Amino acid sequence: MDKSKVLELLSKFISIQSVSADSKRRKEITKAVDFLKNQFKEMGVDVKIIQKGQSPPLILGIYHSDHGRDLNGNRKTIGIYGHYDIQPEDPVDEWESPPFELTIKDGKLYGRGVADNKGHVIQNLTSIKHLIKVNKLKNNIVFIFEGEEEVGSDNFENYVKEAKDILSRVDVFYVTDTGMYKKNIPQIFYGLRGLVYFELEVDIGNKDLHSGIYGNRVLNPVQILAHLLAKMKDEKTNRVLIPGFYNEVRSITQDERNNFKSFARSDEEEKKTAGVYKMISLDKDQAYLSSKFYPSLDVNGIVSGHTREGAKTIIPRKATL
Amino acid sequence: MDKSKVLELLSKFISIQSVSADSKRRKEITKAVDFLKNQFKEMGVDVKIIQKGQSPPLILGIYHSDHGRDLNGNRKTIGIYGHYDIQPEDPVDEWESPPFELTIKDGKLYGRGVADNKGHVIQNLTSIKHLIKVNKLKNNIVFIFEGEEEVGSDNFENYVKEAKDILSRVDVFYVTDTGMYKKNIPQIFYGLRGLVYFELEVDIGNKDLHSGIYGNRVLNPVQILAHLLAKMKDEKTNRVLIPGFYNEVRSITQDERNNFKSFARSDEEEKKTAGVYKMISLDKDQAYLSSKFYPSLDVNGIVSGHTREGAKTIIPRKATL
Repeated sequence: MDKSKVLELLSKFISIQSVSADSKRRKEITKAVDFLKNQFKEMGVDVKIIQKGQSPPLILGIYHSDHGRDLNGNRKTIGIYGHYDIQPEDPVDEWESPPFELTIKDGKLYGRGVADNKGHVIQNLTSIKHLIKVNKLKNNIVFIFEGEEEVGSDNFENYVKEAKDILSRVDVFYVTDTGMYKKNIPQIFYGLRGLVYFELEVDIGNKDLHSGIYGNRVLNPVQILAHLLAKMKDEKTNRVLIPGFYNEVRSITQDERNNFKSFARSDEEEKKTAGVYKMISLDKDQAYLSSKFYPSLDVNGIVSGHTREGAKTIIPRKATL
Repeated sequence: MDKSKVLELLSKFISIQSVSADSKRRKEITKAVDFLKNQFKEMGVDVKIIQKGQSPPLILGIYHSDHGRDLNGNRKTIGIYGHYDIQPEDPVDEWESPPFELTIKDGKLYGRGVADNKGHVIQNLTSIKHLIKVNKLKNNIVFIFEGEEEVGSDNFENYVKEAKDILSRVDVFYVTDTGMYKKNIPQIFYGLRGLVYFELEVDIGNKDLHSGIYGNRVLNPVQILAHLLAKMKDEKTNRVLIPGFYNEVRSITQDERNNFKSFARSDEEEKKTAGVYKMISLDKDQAYLSSKFYPSLDVNGIVSGHTREGAKTIIPRKATL
């Protein structure tokens, strides 16, 4: 298969700003859907779109390897999951290349979504396209691409229910939204931890106050959040202190420990890749497992009060975490 | 004296965006200086400007009540301190009237700087102007207006030293940069607590990281700040826990307690004025004194990571307090 054509396709997909978190870019979501629809048509794959209101739709691409039969035939049906939405590109000024332009540097591809998950989607589309072309596809394929993965997949469950007649015929699902930890060591993921994301706002009143006049008289919302966060995580062990947080975490088997040993990176390597000063761990034997098995708790953003140049003596009226 | 002319003058002064914290508005600082220079000229007051580099200058206005004599004459010399710079106007969308437009509503004046400190400066200028006009000014006056009060008065000490020959002749200084706690109850301020302002940045590395991949493996800068802040203030008593913080705080005398009682507002009144849900206190007998005598510690702003619409699963590379 022609590598340049694959890159051209990825480049086009990357140029679409399908940031699901940004309601102002709903048109870009539509562009991404149209892009995928066209791909399916070119491949001779049937398309089904399920959408609720203005939410990013679910796109199904259904290919019957044995034309004339339906998915109930003798052949196995493989489901391929992916998502066409991407994370916001901010902070923009820290990108070394334009986020929505596919850039190749030292043999690596850069662009918002290359690693999560547009790159994988293109891999899937082009490899299936190739198998169809050379007449070597032995299975039925059901592509299932959503556009809300980066914002919590609010409608996913309902979409899946609506597509039950198609999806129930899938024998095995292949989730492409993962990565390879070490080059040339293929990995099979057999579990994902899931995610709970929430925003917390602490309000002390209805206006910012002068800290010289109201200091010691009103609570500071950032201070309230600080006390709250300090109670949520142990400063020394880094363990989450919220009661019950680890209750349903099963222990890691010896087999799993052995398997993971084979490709775990050293803390030195991790430090370099992450670009941080220090690595921490929750697992006393295999640091690497800390982020693979144990649930984690993190602040993804916080903002309160005066954050621009210079000084401003205020007690902010609210803090958002 | 014509009230509308005073308001017109204040209105012109308020329209000047002399935000010293914003280096992009240096021209507005110059405008404010020119405004004051013109006022002095109109009043027949000598002007002296002291400036270091591009910093907001100190403006001195010197009036000899007995022309022909210098400040060494028999008459007493009164110094009047004020500042022509203002705090930033953000968040702009919470202003009910344009910040740089003097607005009168229910007999009150609104506009950035009306209360701190342009209103007082205009009061001083117009009342002295009036006293000169009606030939009733019995003292020499030295106005001393700076433009860095809102950003820590970096150059003030040096400016004052340079103006030593003039300022050393002042018999009494009048600081106009204060307020009246209750309407029609004049107050004399005999002490100011001063201010230490600093910015604290916690960096964990050189890029934002995916919290799904690096959670439990790297420290979160917001969590680090939370632990730090939680240790700085007692959650129950609201007392600052930094060693030595209260060391040089003198006790409040019974006379002072009695004096302050006469105009202290109730917590209910304070709550309404501040627009908050709850008042706190450091003084077990007179809550009002908490913000008048005791030093306070407050976070004026914090920012880290993703603060825009929607979700972004990152561990921010830095947090700024």
